[in-house]
Amino acid sequence: MTSPIDLLRRQVSDLHQELVRYDLVVWTAGNVSGRVPGEDLFVIKPSGVPYDELTPDTMILCDLDGKVVEGDHAPSSDTAAHAYVYRNMPEVGGVVHTHSTYACAWAARGEAVPCVLTAMADEFGAEIPVGPFALIGDDSIGRGIVETLRGHRSPAVLMKSHGVFTIGRDAKAAVKAAVMCEDVARTVHISRQLGQPLPIAQDDIDSLNHRYRNVYGQQRAAR
Amino acid sequence: MTSPIDLLRRQVSDLHQELVRYDLVVWTAGNVSGRVPGEDLFVIKPSGVPYDELTPDTMILCDLDGKVVEGDHAPSSDTAAHAYVYRNMPEVGGVVHTHSTYACAWAARGEAVPCVLTAMADEFGAEIPVGPFALIGDDSIGRGIVETLRGHRSPAVLMKSHGVFTIGRDAKAAVKAAVMCEDVARTVHISRQLGQPLPIAQDDIDSLNHRYRNVYGQQRAAR
Amino acid sequence: MTSPIDLLRRQVSDLHQELVRYDLVVWTAGNVSGRVPGEDLFVIKPSGVPYDELTPDTMILCDLDGKVVEGDHAPSSDTAAHAYVYRNMPEVGGVVHTHSTYACAWAARGEAVPCVLTAMADEFGAEIPVGPFALIGDDSIGRGIVETLRGHRSPAVLMKSHGVFTIGRDAKAAVKAAVMCEDVARTVHISRQLGQPLPIAQDDIDSLNHRYRNVYGQQRAAR
Amino acid sequence: MTSPIDLLRRQVSDLHQELVRYDLVVWTAGNVSGRVPGEDLFVIKPSGVPYDELTPDTMILCDLDGKVVEGDHAPSSDTAAHAYVYRNMPEVGGVVHTHSTYACAWAARGEAVPCVLTAMADEFGAEIPVGPFALIGDDSIGRGIVETLRGHRSPAVLMKSHGVFTIGRDAKAAVKAAVMCEDVARTVHISRQLGQPLPIAQDDIDSLNHRYRNVYGQQRAAR
Repeated sequence: MTSPIDLLRRQVSDLHQELVRYDLVVWTAGNVSGRVPGEDLFVIKPSGVPYDELTPDTMILCDLDGKVVEGDHAPSSDTAAHAYVYRNMPEVGGVVHTHSTYACAWAARGEAVPCVLTAMADEFGAEIPVGPFALIGDDSIGRGIVETLRGHRSPAVLMKSHGVFTIGRDAKAAVKAAVMCEDVARTVHISRQLGQPLPIAQDDIDSLNHRYRNVYGQQRAAR
Repeated sequence: MTSPIDLLRRQVSDLHQELVRYDLVVWTAGNVSGRVPGEDLFVIKPSGVPYDELTPDTMILCDLDGKVVEGDHAPSSDTAAHAYVYRNMPEVGGVVHTHSTYACAWAARGEAVPCVLTAMADEFGAEIPVGPFALIGDDSIGRGIVETLRGHRSPAVLMKSHGVFTIGRDAKAAVKAAVMCEDVARTVHISRQLGQPLPIAQDDIDSLNHRYRNVYGQQRAAR
Repeated sequence: MTSPIDLLRRQVSDLHQELVRYDLVVWTAGNVSGRVPGEDLFVIKPSGVPYDELTPDTMILCDLDGKVVEGDHAPSSDTAAHAYVYRNMPEVGGVVHTHSTYACAWAARGEAVPCVLTAMADEFGAEIPVGPFALIGDDSIGRGIVETLRGHRSPAVLMKSHGVFTIGRDAKAAVKAAVMCEDVARTVHISRQLGQPLPIAQDDIDSLNHRYRNVYGQQRAAR
Repeated sequence: MTSPIDLLRRQVSDLHQELVRYDLVVWTAGNVSGRVPGEDLFVIKPSGVPYDELTPDTMILCDLDGKVVEGDHAPSSDTAAHAYVYRNMPEVGGVVHTHSTYACAWAARGEAVPCVLTAMADEFGAEIPVGPFALIGDDSIGRGIVETLRGHRSPAVLMKSHGVFTIGRDAKAAVKAAVMCEDVARTVHISRQLGQPLPIAQDDIDSLNHRYRNVYGQQRAAR
């Protein structure tokens, strides 16, 4: 019988292909991780392995301090940031990091993506916020993600001058948030090139987001 | 022998791949439906199923109130809008909804795409108009589509802050309209980035559209 | 033994896939034709057939008045324009028409693409010029192409508010010109978005173009 | 046993597919070369052969004056520039040339890409500099590359009005630099369209680049 960790290895490995399919990554940049349900462990992409060569076996199993528990490669150089999120946000089951083009273009200006599309009200329920500038090497990036997203409706944060981190109840939800984040970052950017997108009233944003999280969510849960 | 409904299930399922091919959709957003000829029924995409997993069997059969007649999944969350169009526009045999990037960028500003390309005069015969801001959950979206497109040459409407709906004599024609809508929304956007596209005289628009609908249309009918 | 016309049917059919590969066309828009060497005949795409379904057999053989000599479908609705070019430019062996995005964006403003890249000096030897606004239905489009390109170094013309026509010594050269036209139209557009591209001195343009047509050309001929 | 030159032929041939995958080239533009370890020889793409038809056998072996030592085709028309780099930068084991869109857009304005993304501080450690305008036909292009990149952290140079050259310790590293160059040229361009990207402090750039070249580099060397 396939163990929960092996299932997760396969899921996390496969989800990396969605980053490629939606052009969110180049070369070996970008990474997906998923928490092992009920354990203080998560599975993450190895460092520097091409997307074509990712397999369940190459995924790295880490503890919540980001130490390797099992795996033949070094884990992603962003492992400490993922680990910090899992340690501090127990409700999070998946984390994704990309340098997707349009989201990074907003991040490079340190500017949030305003909520001006109904699909964005559904998925993000608010603007996509900007997190602090933080250097790699300690907990700064992880702390910036958690401080920005805790209590925020958005599952995505634009880390200043850097890139995107997204969270979700599982790895698939975090990947969906990364895909949608780039999609709305692109559409709102293009809209703004020729003028100002119309605001959506806060009440309408609230109502769309509530419906999406509840009515639509229950419908999906029922499937 | 294959029934008309089974043929339509296959056609509608296959047409979703055109949305993917032309980059009109991400994740599970977007949907195509087709009216069952001579019956008060239509076939539509299920909700939340990935494009890779769509098959004729997964398509949902609905009545013109949007109630499921046959199908194992919930129908697309946009089913009520499709149903409203079929109830109120008997000449329509296909409806498509997307959040395609450039069309949504115009929709987010609430701005119509001006008719400044001969291909646009052919296919749309006018600007691509903007429909009202409308929340999901009742007939508001359907009503907005019908009120905007009834009597308009354009088979596409940009719903404000939301996305595109297109109509056609059948599902394939509605998909073609969605593809062409994004194509001209993109080209006119890019043209406008560096100046003003030249207007086309109303007489020339009329003449191009008339020829396309008749001469070219009859030629196609004859094939 | 394969006849020259059958070889040309295959070549013209295959070259349409390059239009798809380089995203120069959507749906059934765009067409390639090639002159039958030594005969007053050319082979062109059928009207309204999807790119996936094009085969050598579906190509249409026409005379230089654009009348169908052999073929089961109607020829491309742009056949009259191709025929006019073959009648009036005996040195031309291939013609291509597209609505490629960036080239059309320049065409919609009626603005030539300035020669500001060495690759453009190589391939086009000058700006890519704008042809007149012309309605489909008589010789206006063909005449506009010929009057613009006769005596011009550029093998591509941007027909005002319409799209691109390119010519070449054979169909492959015309397809290459269509691919390069969109490539430089895109690069120069993007460069202009943030300022003015630097001019290249006329002497340098002349020298690059001369070398490309001669030294590089002979080298290629020698292969 | 496979000889080092045969291994290099295969590697250089395969790496051209990365240029296609990342949309850095159209038609037959662009080329990759790799130095034969320990010999005054390098392997480079043949001139004018489509990317689909490149095989190890079609690669051309040249000496450091750019003369063909072995090969059935003429070598890339940029061979003299590659040769000049290998003659004058003994630490370089790979060279890549492309006309990738966004990098060329900066090159056409003669404007360096500012270092405003952490990924750019990692990979380039500085702005991506502009090299001189230089005509093909003598050592001008090679000299411009070497004079710009010698002593510069960036492995990429934007040759004015022309395109990109990148260098690396081997062909793969040069290809990675070409991929990353286009990626950051695109992201910074898009960011600049709606305002000014935030600067990154020089100390932070230095620290990121040092870490990437050392900590991350050693980690990779250890794999």
